[in-house]
Amino acid sequence: MPRSTARREEILAVAGELFRQKGYHATSMQDIAERLQLQRGSLYAHIDSKEELLFDIVDRAADRFLAGIEQAWREGRTARERLRRALAAHMSVIAEHRDTASVFFHEWRFLRDDLRRRIQAKRDRYEARWRELVADGVQRGEFRPVDPRFAALLALSAVNWAYQWYSPEGPLSPEEVAGAFADLILQGLEAAPRADTSPEEPAG
Amino acid sequence: MPRSTARREEILAVAGELFRQKGYHATSMQDIAERLQLQRGSLYAHIDSKEELLFDIVDRAADRFLAGIEQAWREGRTARERLRRALAAHMSVIAEHRDTASVFFHEWRFLRDDLRRRIQAKRDRYEARWRELVADGVQRGEFRPVDPRFAALLALSAVNWAYQWYSPEGPLSPEEVAGAFADLILQGLEAAPRADTSPEEPAG
Repeated sequence: MPRSTARREEILAVAGELFRQKGYHATSMQDIAERLQLQRGSLYAHIDSKEELLFDIVDRAADRFLAGIEQAWREGRTARERLRRALAAHMSVIAEHRDTASVFFHEWRFLRDDLRRRIQAKRDRYEARWRELVADGVQRGEFRPVDPRFAALLALSAVNWAYQWYSPEGPLSPEEVAGAFADLILQGLEAAPRADTSPEEPAG
Repeated sequence: MPRSTARREEILAVAGELFRQKGYHATSMQDIAERLQLQRGSLYAHIDSKEELLFDIVDRAADRFLAGIEQAWREGRTARERLRRALAAHMSVIAEHRDTASVFFHEWRFLRDDLRRRIQAKRDRYEARWRELVADGVQRGEFRPVDPRFAALLALSAVNWAYQWYSPEGPLSPEEVAGAFADLILQGLEAAPRADTSPEEPAG
């Protein structure tokens, strides 16, 4: 039986929403079927298990985050620009896929060992790319000789935590949030004091 | 019947651990009783409901965070020092009460409206204190004229997110983590000290 892609997308969206709202353990296949106005049996025509849903949601989120930083690397010409782009890409994944982001951050730990290890490998690669980005900026002389672990972690924490407070209905676009964090972080990282001091010329 | 404080502490610790591990909704009073090798009935001699446990855990966490920043305000003489102390205090709450911190960040939203509002008020107060700390630093001329919302959020995000990765068994003490973040954040906030290499007076 061919599994309809559109239907599968719909199931993943509903599962993501329920996993975020109630938690993975507290959500049953019955809950998902009811929300979709499906029989539980019909659900199993599209999906094998609740865990498969969790894995799919989390795996896609990991891929989106990874694609964002890879694009930032390719398109940014300086470490500074890459950092800005990587922050913006991360914020846009969070803003556009809030259920998914929440499930990615919390519920993923309920995956069974082999699946969790596959996600862990992607998370590790993503974090490593952030550290490389900072280390590269230090090597180019764009950034001060900071510890790339903490600098990467500061940047990632800012945009990760956004899933807790950011609302697309609020006054700020994901780009504005990413830009504000980038300004603060870059100010702390940059090797030379920025020349954009106040335009006021000495009076007299 | 007098409720033993020690027993209550033990119940709160076990509930916090289970809420973090399985999620609030997926944890039953029966689970908590079993972990404590108690009859479910005996549990009710100490506690009225699962929600009371959740509220107590979350409310104490809120109080610990608030106490930390108030102490940082009192004891720090400069904005810079207050920020360092506030980061260290926050990290130490997270390091010492990891179950609690996790429940504070995630499970609190499952509280019923009136209880959740009480916690929200404390969270708001805490975040407001962070913004005041930054705004005060700007006013004193210690910090650049940054937007206190984002600067406070950057600092808070760094230490909030730590509950996801920090392990007391790891190589870093909570103080070291807080110190590393403080260095990066302050570097970005501080008004350039070299700004006093003021342009030479025309009259020289």
